[in-house]
Amino acid sequence: MKAPTFSRPHKIHFSECDPAGIVFYPQYFVLFNDLIEAWIDDLLPEGYHGVIGARRIGMPTVRLEVDFKAISKMGDRVTLSLDVQRLGNASLVLAWACTGADGVVRMSALQTLVTTSLDTHKAIPMPDDLRGAIELAMARAHTG
Amino acid sequence: MKAPTFSRPHKIHFSECDPAGIVFYPQYFVLFNDLIEAWIDDLLPEGYHGVIGARRIGMPTVRLEVDFKAISKMGDRVTLSLDVQRLGNASLVLAWACTGADGVVRMSALQTLVTTSLDTHKAIPMPDDLRGAIELAMARAHTG
Amino acid sequence: MKAPTFSRPHKIHFSECDPAGIVFYPQYFVLFNDLIEAWIDDLLPEGYHGVIGARRIGMPTVRLEVDFKAISKMGDRVTLSLDVQRLGNASLVLAWACTGADGVVRMSALQTLVTTSLDTHKAIPMPDDLRGAIELAMARAHTG
Amino acid sequence: MKAPTFSRPHKIHFSECDPAGIVFYPQYFVLFNDLIEAWIDDLLPEGYHGVIGARRIGMPTVRLEVDFKAISKMGDRVTLSLDVQRLGNASLVLAWACTGADGVVRMSALQTLVTTSLDTHKAIPMPDDLRGAIELAMARAHTG
Repeated sequence: MKAPTFSRPHKIHFSECDPAGIVFYPQYFVLFNDLIEAWIDDLLPEGYHGVIGARRIGMPTVRLEVDFKAISKMGDRVTLSLDVQRLGNASLVLAWACTGADGVVRMSALQTLVTTSLDTHKAIPMPDDLRGAIELAMARAHTG
Repeated sequence: MKAPTFSRPHKIHFSECDPAGIVFYPQYFVLFNDLIEAWIDDLLPEGYHGVIGARRIGMPTVRLEVDFKAISKMGDRVTLSLDVQRLGNASLVLAWACTGADGVVRMSALQTLVTTSLDTHKAIPMPDDLRGAIELAMARAHTG
Repeated sequence: MKAPTFSRPHKIHFSECDPAGIVFYPQYFVLFNDLIEAWIDDLLPEGYHGVIGARRIGMPTVRLEVDFKAISKMGDRVTLSLDVQRLGNASLVLAWACTGADGVVRMSALQTLVTTSLDTHKAIPMPDDLRGAIELAMARAHTG
Repeated sequence: MKAPTFSRPHKIHFSECDPAGIVFYPQYFVLFNDLIEAWIDDLLPEGYHGVIGARRIGMPTVRLEVDFKAISKMGDRVTLSLDVQRLGNASLVLAWACTGADGVVRMSALQTLVTTSLDTHKAIPMPDDLRGAIELAMARAHTG
């Protein structure tokens, strides 16, 4: 079985849950935004904040398809993972999964991101170093 | 032109924006959760909190398809609206739109919700009073 | 009795509550940040986003003293209010209150803000138009 | 020099920052809530979620005094730490610090929490196992 491109364990915090004691679903998007940030930090020496900050390159989301399949409760230990589905000229499609300790997928999604200039908010080609690092990560996940 | 089932104006707050000065996209889901809450408050005398709290009926999201078409900046005045697309036995499909003052849709989504017991987290038929109120709102939007 | 300098009603949303069904306390700070934003929008034609955005003037918080006296539950109708306690050269002390429909104060705070340059993050004198508008609001609240 | 009772490193996320590119201050309270949760997870086998969930014991904040001394920017590596200042019958005073890689304290706070019943929301004595574990952690920090 193929390993995901990037993943990390997470414990569902009190702060992420709603009055029903389960994850307030918008929090999943914060968790995966933080996961993507950690992934880019791993890929590039300057990190996600360097891309956004010094280089003024944004990575806004343009499309999301999300399935919530099972609930996650406060205290649950889950794995958050992402896989690169497609790497385009100025876009990236990621497949997310939040998986329980029992291997059951609680939430999965397809996210399309584009690289943009934060000055004009228009799409720009993905920088070569980021593209190269993503290709390397894809190759590693494939063989790893 | 058909009016949306429910809508309200919103000004994009500082607290909703990211370091790029535009809406941090998970905040859209909070905004629409609050919009649905305001809509149910309008439909039922006991309000959304009465359904969730006293009656222990949840309305979790099971599927989302979202398109982010244009950015919303801090201070922008937008309209948040929802339309009922489908009313099932234990489910509801809502179409969302965040529209700028110029009429351009910045973000749209299809959301599928189900009614569940907050004790078992299993689907249960939508309560008759909520179904009746939604049907009335749909009829009003259609003729309004 | 003196009216507060600025206030507005608020209904406690599901999205603001924690697994205990009461306001997750960090959300109070978001609510009051939004309240201050609405107040500045009222005071200046360009609004809070204009001060922060076009003029690059920040209003960071440097000190907070907060008392949480009673809980606020999902669905509660409260009043959020602020009073100017002190207006300095580059600082502002605001007194906040979240008050229930029964007049009982659930949470109160003293917040010290300073005006800063968002380029240097150093304190700068409060702009004259903002100072003038705040003085007018204080005078109105006093006599109103 | 005395070690803090509990601490962990943190990198400031994009999701925690505001349009000025610095931590949106309410996010500090989420970060420290998560820190306290991790600390209780360390102290008790059932974890924070077990105390809140199964035992229905809440730990609401009743007072906060906070000083924001220096900004934290997106990407900054900081240490979040807490110390027990006072352990009462039904209350706990914690001293927080967010410290930069250069040793400069960016934000510090004193937080008073009480133990409550989540059914009545009234104060109850701190459970013996939690008190014992906190006393042990205090002793270890003192000698460690």
